Amino acid sequence: MEEKKVSQRILSRLPIYIDYLKSISIEENEFISSGKIAEELGLGEVQVRKDLASVCKSGKPKLGYSTEELIDTLETFLGYKDMENAIVVGAGKLGGALLSYEGFNQYGLNVVMGFDMKSEASDSYVINKKIMHVSFLENYCKEFNIKIGIITTPSENAQLVCDKMVESGILAIMNFAPIYLKAPENILIQNINIASKLALLRVNLYRKESS
Amino acid sequence: MEEKKVSQRILSRLPIYIDYLKSISIEENEFISSGKIAEELGLGEVQVRKDLASVCKSGKPKLGYSTEELIDTLETFLGYKDMENAIVVGAGKLGGALLSYEGFNQYGLNVVMGFDMKSEASDSYVINKKIMHVSFLENYCKEFNIKIGIITTPSENAQLVCDKMVESGILAIMNFAPIYLKAPENILIQNINIASKLALLRVNLYRKESS
Repeated sequence: MEEKKVSQRILSRLPIYIDYLKSISIEENEFISSGKIAEELGLGEVQVRKDLASVCKSGKPKLGYSTEELIDTLETFLGYKDMENAIVVGAGKLGGALLSYEGFNQYGLNVVMGFDMKSEASDSYVINKKIMHVSFLENYCKEFNIKIGIITTPSENAQLVCDKMVESGILAIMNFAPIYLKAPENILIQNINIASKLALLRVNLYRKESS
Repeated sequence: MEEKKVSQRILSRLPIYIDYLKSISIEENEFISSGKIAEELGLGEVQVRKDLASVCKSGKPKLGYSTEELIDTLETFLGYKDMENAIVVGAGKLGGALLSYEGFNQYGLNVVMGFDMKSEASDSYVINKKIMHVSFLENYCKEFNIKIGIITTPSENAQLVCDKMVESGILAIMNFAPIYLKAPENILIQNINIASKLALLRVNLYRKESS
């Protein structure tokens, strides 16, 4: 994984470029220009050129970037080629969906194990991933050096789970519970509140219709 | 739903304020200042004050905002009090999780029906939500005036589903498939690629560790 300093805003756009580049035919697009990418994604050309320049060498004059090399460079930069393990706490429907999603591997991630607060969920399996009681979380994370945890519990358990993750040595948490979590400053927390994102999409829909 | 012009960046922070305000005790915090909110969320006070001022009247001098009224104002602004129906296409694990998630109601949303490409999934139920074959999508959406659709199919079906949604009169799409979708300009698309977000969290973790 590269260590270049790239702003959060640029970082957040890099996966969009990868998704787009993978959606086009490499045979028909051996090379691609930042202008073409910008046009297809509805972004400014200067922005796309700067974004790409921040992680890779410039393309060939008149031809642009080799599409395959560009995908490879972006994926390497984002760590998609180095595997890292993560765990999920909250083995309900969303947790189960994440545990059984095979696509994480393409992003350098392996969601290896699920934990649940309810003992009746323990020792069950989602696809081939085991669910253990959350009391085993600390031992497991320390033994296998797990640094990334995903919270998919109901809101009322999320803070407790967050605290347990921190005690277990987890340093980065993706939180799907619609609650604001308190954690020490050195812990990275990313909240994904799907319902509020859907509500914002709706707000934008009505603003657009009324404008 | 209000029609005030508020930037996308401010809009995206409003749900965070709601989540935070709902996580504190109203009894102990009858009033709350923008300074307190800023401190707790690690944001700048000026930013919080401006964000809140863009959707509601200023708080009382020395006291700040009535916490309950502030939650109410923010929720009204974001449409959480007017119910709207949405549908899901792709009744796999993630689609099933969204169909069975009861929390959407608090955000003014009701995910009423699931559709699937596979006929063997049709006429089944997730909790009490029916799954129908995708061939019924257009009739259903037109009959019930559905404007919001969620795509949780595998990538290879996502563009086809997107096209069918557009034909069915859907105007806003939340897409969980890790693929760039093409749609007419008047269609709002929000992509949520959970795996790439988790990969970015990991990039940030290693940047932090090495800095």
